[in-house]
Amino acid sequence: MATFFCLSKFSTLPSRPFSSLFPSTPFLSKSSINLALASSFSSATSSFTWDDVLRVSHQSQSATQHRSRYLQGFYHKVQLCNRSSEKQSEFLPFVIEDHVVGFIHDGFVEHLRDFGDVFVFYKDKYNGAPYGDFVSLHPKLKTAEERTSAIGYVVEHLGEEQIPGIRNELYPVTSSYGAPIFFSLERAAAPYFGIKAYGVHMNGYVEVDGEKHLWVGKRSETKQTYPGMLDHLVAGGLPHGIDCQENVIKECEEEAGIPRSIAIKAIPVGAVSYMDIEGYRYKRDVLFCYDLKLPKDFVPKNKDGEVDSFKLIPITQVAEVIHKTHFFKPNCSLVIIDFLFRHGSISPEYHGYLDLLRSLRIGDYS
Amino acid sequence: MATFFCLSKFSTLPSRPFSSLFPSTPFLSKSSINLALASSFSSATSSFTWDDVLRVSHQSQSATQHRSRYLQGFYHKVQLCNRSSEKQSEFLPFVIEDHVVGFIHDGFVEHLRDFGDVFVFYKDKYNGAPYGDFVSLHPKLKTAEERTSAIGYVVEHLGEEQIPGIRNELYPVTSSYGAPIFFSLERAAAPYFGIKAYGVHMNGYVEVDGEKHLWVGKRSETKQTYPGMLDHLVAGGLPHGIDCQENVIKECEEEAGIPRSIAIKAIPVGAVSYMDIEGYRYKRDVLFCYDLKLPKDFVPKNKDGEVDSFKLIPITQVAEVIHKTHFFKPNCSLVIIDFLFRHGSISPEYHGYLDLLRSLRIGDYS
Repeated sequence: MATFFCLSKFSTLPSRPFSSLFPSTPFLSKSSINLALASSFSSATSSFTWDDVLRVSHQSQSATQHRSRYLQGFYHKVQLCNRSSEKQSEFLPFVIEDHVVGFIHDGFVEHLRDFGDVFVFYKDKYNGAPYGDFVSLHPKLKTAEERTSAIGYVVEHLGEEQIPGIRNELYPVTSSYGAPIFFSLERAAAPYFGIKAYGVHMNGYVEVDGEKHLWVGKRSETKQTYPGMLDHLVAGGLPHGIDCQENVIKECEEEAGIPRSIAIKAIPVGAVSYMDIEGYRYKRDVLFCYDLKLPKDFVPKNKDGEVDSFKLIPITQVAEVIHKTHFFKPNCSLVIIDFLFRHGSISPEYHGYLDLLRSLRIGDYS
Repeated sequence: MATFFCLSKFSTLPSRPFSSLFPSTPFLSKSSINLALASSFSSATSSFTWDDVLRVSHQSQSATQHRSRYLQGFYHKVQLCNRSSEKQSEFLPFVIEDHVVGFIHDGFVEHLRDFGDVFVFYKDKYNGAPYGDFVSLHPKLKTAEERTSAIGYVVEHLGEEQIPGIRNELYPVTSSYGAPIFFSLERAAAPYFGIKAYGVHMNGYVEVDGEKHLWVGKRSETKQTYPGMLDHLVAGGLPHGIDCQENVIKECEEEAGIPRSIAIKAIPVGAVSYMDIEGYRYKRDVLFCYDLKLPKDFVPKNKDGEVDSFKLIPITQVAEVIHKTHFFKPNCSLVIIDFLFRHGSISPEYHGYLDLLRSLRIGDYS
């Protein structure tokens, strides 16, 4: 057994009593934990500590005794990344050069009508187009630079009221990964235009006595999104002008202090995708997944202030945390469940195996 | 470097001149090899030897110089498992107890009309059904045993002329994996009824100096299907009454002489699927994928006479063989490409990464 910081040996941090998080529910009651957190997971500060994580992480009998329900717990987490698909009809295609690059909600379209020199609104079957009603850019905006600038103006004008969380970080807009870039768009605005966004998510793991342990991060309480929640060792959006591997290496350094000599060993292992509708926002995310087997004595150290702390947790216990709580940032669940699939932690004998596998790639991952 | 039988050291078997396989084409010309074999891969005896495999397996510059074309080579192999999807409309749903369990070609339905006490043929929107025209079983056939027996009689009566390759091996018929079994059906008849068939495919590999090598089998020349072609170390259909892991262990023993103590370490890593239409046959296959890391000194030994010989081949060279030839039994390509994805041999920087990933699960894998 190695001597590093391992959750199973960890019980020193002060902790709020678990019962204060889930008052009047029995300790470790899965359904009550789910209920308590279900409605607030994406916005509220998640006030839990590593001690709370430790308490729920011990494997219950669910895996062996109730295989069907066990995968349902995972499936439920995936569903939380894929909400309201029945509302797709409320969105209009956003079409550039005959490619559908996004989807914009009827209601959000109303905000765009004030910008007639940037957006144009075509009615049903315009010019033989197969989309019905759709939104496009003004034909005078021909180059990527012109479009980026014009839409940037609109985003700035709509401001925090319509598009909260502006980061001044540009995302490329394409019809599919690797295709030509039509323009670039403020990251926070991407869901309002239903732009496909790509990211890299890396599971950093260590093998101890034949058992895999995942390094789990806890996001800073001051992060704009999902403060205090659990996260991968390394993850990040894929901005314009950098390829996946270089982005992984960059994020490894910034988020976990992993030197390039180690980060370069991260291997690409596929992708997961989801499509999530919430109000005017249509997230269409594709996450390229990476695995990095780390040296046993490596200890991650955050450099950009975005991660509060890290813990090394046996994979079976990580699975329990995903299963029983909403402690993880929602989209991390997909990537970790994909890890569980690829590393043999879930087997076809579990009822719902194929349903869960299918659910990991519901979104358009082109 | 280990001392066992490794393709890269292997050049002793007698070989037909490669040029006799592909007359008047330049040696190692990818496109000509594809052309030469494309039309005949599924039926004709594939007269090639391990020496031929060796010759094409050496990595060309395609991976590094022509990344786009490189993945296209894989994509093309996947397409060969997913032919004629545009002909789905020629098939009628086969419905049992309100579940679509299969699809039967218009033309094959005509053969079934002679068996009015077994099959019934409903017209459009019968009784509120959402399928249009569909085929079902006679309502008097209530139990799985009665249905198995009645359809078994039909299959026997239609015989080799309509359903060639009868194996006397029964496959369970369900609407989805793990769901109740409506009846059992002769394996060779499954594609004529468009039944979903499940199988297990295992990549057996060894790690030598940090490089993964796959154990590749060459099917017996007397095998009924795909004689002489390359195959996984272990693969098999999933018959009635045995779960995936037990089937893997059984096939490990029969096909490769892998003892239970080793076979039990095979890990489930997901599934691939395809849907292939050829004449009256509609194959809807779901392959549960397994990885088994074998001891370096293990040498497989076939026991059931279905495999001619095995070779250990570096994974990069296996990729070249898939890329350049049709030597592999077609559906093995999917499972090996899935292995390449999961083990980091294909990266998002290759153009077409997501297209290829998506193509591995085109079929309904419920």
